[in-house]
Amino acid sequence: MKILGLDSSGLVAGAAVVEDGILLGEYTTNYKKTHSQTLLPMLEALKNMIELDLNTLDAIAVASGPGSFTGLRIGSATAKGLGLALKKPLVEVPTLEGLAWNLWGTDRIVCPLMDARRNQVYTAAYEFVPRGEEFELKTVIPQSPADINDMLEKINGLGRPVIFLGDGVPVYLDLIRKNVVVEYGIAPAGSNRQRACSIAALGAVYYAGGKAVDAADHRPEYLRKSQAEA
Amino acid sequence: MKILGLDSSGLVAGAAVVEDGILLGEYTTNYKKTHSQTLLPMLEALKNMIELDLNTLDAIAVASGPGSFTGLRIGSATAKGLGLALKKPLVEVPTLEGLAWNLWGTDRIVCPLMDARRNQVYTAAYEFVPRGEEFELKTVIPQSPADINDMLEKINGLGRPVIFLGDGVPVYLDLIRKNVVVEYGIAPAGSNRQRACSIAALGAVYYAGGKAVDAADHRPEYLRKSQAEA
Repeated sequence: MKILGLDSSGLVAGAAVVEDGILLGEYTTNYKKTHSQTLLPMLEALKNMIELDLNTLDAIAVASGPGSFTGLRIGSATAKGLGLALKKPLVEVPTLEGLAWNLWGTDRIVCPLMDARRNQVYTAAYEFVPRGEEFELKTVIPQSPADINDMLEKINGLGRPVIFLGDGVPVYLDLIRKNVVVEYGIAPAGSNRQRACSIAALGAVYYAGGKAVDAADHRPEYLRKSQAEA
Repeated sequence: MKILGLDSSGLVAGAAVVEDGILLGEYTTNYKKTHSQTLLPMLEALKNMIELDLNTLDAIAVASGPGSFTGLRIGSATAKGLGLALKKPLVEVPTLEGLAWNLWGTDRIVCPLMDARRNQVYTAAYEFVPRGEEFELKTVIPQSPADINDMLEKINGLGRPVIFLGDGVPVYLDLIRKNVVVEYGIAPAGSNRQRACSIAALGAVYYAGGKAVDAADHRPEYLRKSQAEA
């Protein structure tokens, strides 16, 4: 099974191809350029470097939100365009689950914090449960927009060691240090931001479980209204 | 602190740039092309995509072995060439430690298995020990070439849950399934092969700890003699 993963939900733009549990190639940038300047050129470069025939893909997994409105639209538009042109299904991987997947194998609670401005975060809490030789990602606190203080209180309430990650961590680090009373860690470079490989790898799990959608039916999940709409 | 990481110790070729705990960019391929065809073009493409001025690097981290003899030489030659031209120090990151770093945050023993043919593996065992908000990588069994059966026995002897990763896993999976009596997991795509970002991130830790060498002094660590020498 060969899955292309795309993530442009935050500052990171990334493309990755996973086949049968092996990463064939990944291209990631976290830079001030807009994703419309980077995502497709990166995919094209990666495709050429690994001589990928896009027709051999089984599905296209995309970070489906929450995230930056513009970023999500670029990712979704790219995935939809490819899906429609290639007649391939899409797999919608919630951004926060993709982030959590970066920490595959930890016994701790995983708490992604995506900055949503004004003391708000897009957040959730997950844990990895062993299942045979693998781990299953289980939801402990479902994804939602939340006040950072409320979320840290909920994390304290779980009473278990936790790892924080995401672009909300540097923004709210002082609050974390002041208010978190459970043992906690801060994820390092390589696992603390969105990663297309995690979208592809988790997308493969979901695709195998039958969770695919027609490209025409895909919509990103913004989790809240844009400021203009609100 | 800005660190370039290079890994061409196995089938994977990768380049990554990490600055102050954030991945700025990463390019990874796992494909039949030789590393001499991929490593420098990938670095060049990445450099352009994130507009990296190589003179702003603090150091160049390289997967320093064990691994494929040719792959290690290409990685070391590239790192040495860059280091000499740019007058930057090198940071030697043992390949097996870089692999283990992929599983940052796990409470389990991490056991990389690199296939060295003829029932031999390059292997070691590590654990992550919490230190404040971070984890420190600690050696449980030092790196060495080993008979796969002897290593699996040592892992059983530790009596702790373990995660296996590396290109030796598919080769020796039947032996693992038959002989490993502790709880074990098999790392998925994204963490089960060499990753330049892990070399850069762990390289940053080592560089901060003063473990740098002059480019002229760097030699890869093969761990055993080549077949021709033997």
